[in-house]
Amino acid sequence: MEKIVTMAQGAGGKLMSEFIKEHILSNLTPANKTGDIDLPLEALDDSAVIDQIALTTDSYTVSPLFFPGGDIGRLAAAGTINDLAVIGARPVAMTCSFIIEEGFRMNLFDRICRNLSETAKEVSLPIITGDTKVVERGAINELMINTTAIGYRSEILDRNLSEARRALDKNWLVDSNLESGDQIILSGNLADHGAALLSKRYGVQSLIKSDVAPIYGIVQEALKVGGVVAAKDPTRGGLSNLLNEWSEKSKIGIFVQEQAIPISEGSRAICEMLGIDPLTIGNEGKAVLGVVKEKAGDVLKAIRRHPLGKNASIIGEISGEIKGVVMETSVGTKRIVESPLGDPIPRIC
Amino acid sequence: MEKIVTMAQGAGGKLMSEFIKEHILSNLTPANKTGDIDLPLEALDDSAVIDQIALTTDSYTVSPLFFPGGDIGRLAAAGTINDLAVIGARPVAMTCSFIIEEGFRMNLFDRICRNLSETAKEVSLPIITGDTKVVERGAINELMINTTAIGYRSEILDRNLSEARRALDKNWLVDSNLESGDQIILSGNLADHGAALLSKRYGVQSLIKSDVAPIYGIVQEALKVGGVVAAKDPTRGGLSNLLNEWSEKSKIGIFVQEQAIPISEGSRAICEMLGIDPLTIGNEGKAVLGVVKEKAGDVLKAIRRHPLGKNASIIGEISGEIKGVVMETSVGTKRIVESPLGDPIPRIC
Repeated sequence: MEKIVTMAQGAGGKLMSEFIKEHILSNLTPANKTGDIDLPLEALDDSAVIDQIALTTDSYTVSPLFFPGGDIGRLAAAGTINDLAVIGARPVAMTCSFIIEEGFRMNLFDRICRNLSETAKEVSLPIITGDTKVVERGAINELMINTTAIGYRSEILDRNLSEARRALDKNWLVDSNLESGDQIILSGNLADHGAALLSKRYGVQSLIKSDVAPIYGIVQEALKVGGVVAAKDPTRGGLSNLLNEWSEKSKIGIFVQEQAIPISEGSRAICEMLGIDPLTIGNEGKAVLGVVKEKAGDVLKAIRRHPLGKNASIIGEISGEIKGVVMETSVGTKRIVESPLGDPIPRIC
Repeated sequence: MEKIVTMAQGAGGKLMSEFIKEHILSNLTPANKTGDIDLPLEALDDSAVIDQIALTTDSYTVSPLFFPGGDIGRLAAAGTINDLAVIGARPVAMTCSFIIEEGFRMNLFDRICRNLSETAKEVSLPIITGDTKVVERGAINELMINTTAIGYRSEILDRNLSEARRALDKNWLVDSNLESGDQIILSGNLADHGAALLSKRYGVQSLIKSDVAPIYGIVQEALKVGGVVAAKDPTRGGLSNLLNEWSEKSKIGIFVQEQAIPISEGSRAICEMLGIDPLTIGNEGKAVLGVVKEKAGDVLKAIRRHPLGKNASIIGEISGEIKGVVMETSVGTKRIVESPLGDPIPRIC
């Protein structure tokens, strides 16, 4: 039978990871002469780095375009800002490429564009170039946006890393930097973005709003304290996927406590109603940080002082004694947290 | 009546230009604190420049995905390379973001991916990061690709510009650099990309192949001679749109000779059959250069030595005595060349 691409291959889980390795990395083979690439395509981290310039790209295909707490414009800006923020880069310039379906309402387009712009301004990020394509009715579903951005390393990052007082795999906050003993901090409530989209899509009455926001500020507050060795945002595939990526790339076990993971009543109710594990759905305004043990308490305090970090919590730690990701549940049992195979739900980011 | 987005607003002509000014530039207002932006969004040039880093983005929505002479993969690499090449930058790193329709055949995806990679390798350009989204059947038409790239300025560009021996608007090959007397060189046959796509789409028997190719090499050959002040590739809206953009941004008239514009018999026949002006359809492997008069002959010779430049020709010059773009036709009459209002044909790039 002829092989085809399936939804699961874009869902941020195991099947996506296999698809990327087998069909993208193997085809996009490196050019002969390259710059000084610190973080290459093969690292599959949130951003790449060449000549100390961080670079990241993301296409946004969210449906519906407007959801409680945000829209595709705010999502497109925040998502790309966050991919730079979590490797420790300062966002410097962004591009913005629109694909618009013929017949799309101009006033909606204006709203989306303004929200994208306002979100970029929250981190003083200029949008310096773009592209606009209009496609025939039916060729796409309303509107898609690609944002791509460059970022620089900062003194704060360098000082933060020196506070870790150990040799790191890379001089950025990459997935492979973790070691036994490092503490894992989550910056706030999990699952609000996914829950808000699902409630809107399925017409469930709910007050839950997406958490979509730039997390650059919160990461900076953590870096000022020092000792942060890795950071990542739990988007596609959620926290489950994030922890499994860390475990795999750092070749180390991760132990988390369910009780320590903050989830609002509302989001928990929606996940239960739909039978979805809140650890597997996407977030768009949360940071997960790996911090050396001596600094974890101070980093947590700093994050909690930030408006987006009030519910921050130490949710677990890196452990040399286990393999993969293990969670102690609220009832005291232990379970293996696997990366989701595919997406439990249709596209939400 | 409620305003909606129409096909013409993405077609590279006057209506698109208005749409971008009224609905994109006005909404994407600048951030408060910005880097050293040499070429901002408002310049609407082929690339932007910040801190001497050139940045360009393009989303590719071509249909059909495979066409005589190329495919969306080669197009996505070449198109973005070319946007850097024509402001005088050396391509340094590229991102690649795929939006794939569920059910898309894996072997076609592999072919497209490999062609994208091979095309980037022609200019030693590494693809260092990417993104993959799979969307439900019907949410898009097969496959869309965004490529975004950064480039650096080079010594060759600086030496070339110093050969122009005059003050330039910008230290890059921008649209506003032209002055009376500058010669306009087209690097080869016009209209092959559009004609190849049209013949494929309408099932017309033809041997015409798309010209899709990176033009970085040919621009470099020209820069080595010196005196090139502006460069641009005639993509959406074709040569007509390009010349009108130059005329508007440089605030100067342009005079071209129809007889000097190389067009193959085959492409001319297809355009005539379909009633399309070959000056208004897209090309994906041609450079148009504005060169100071003293250097134009030598630049032409250098371009002709390049495999992609055999049919290069001086097609006109900048003139202070006329307004807008005027063409002397093959039969000796003169006509005003206007920027097309919209696209004469459905999306070809």
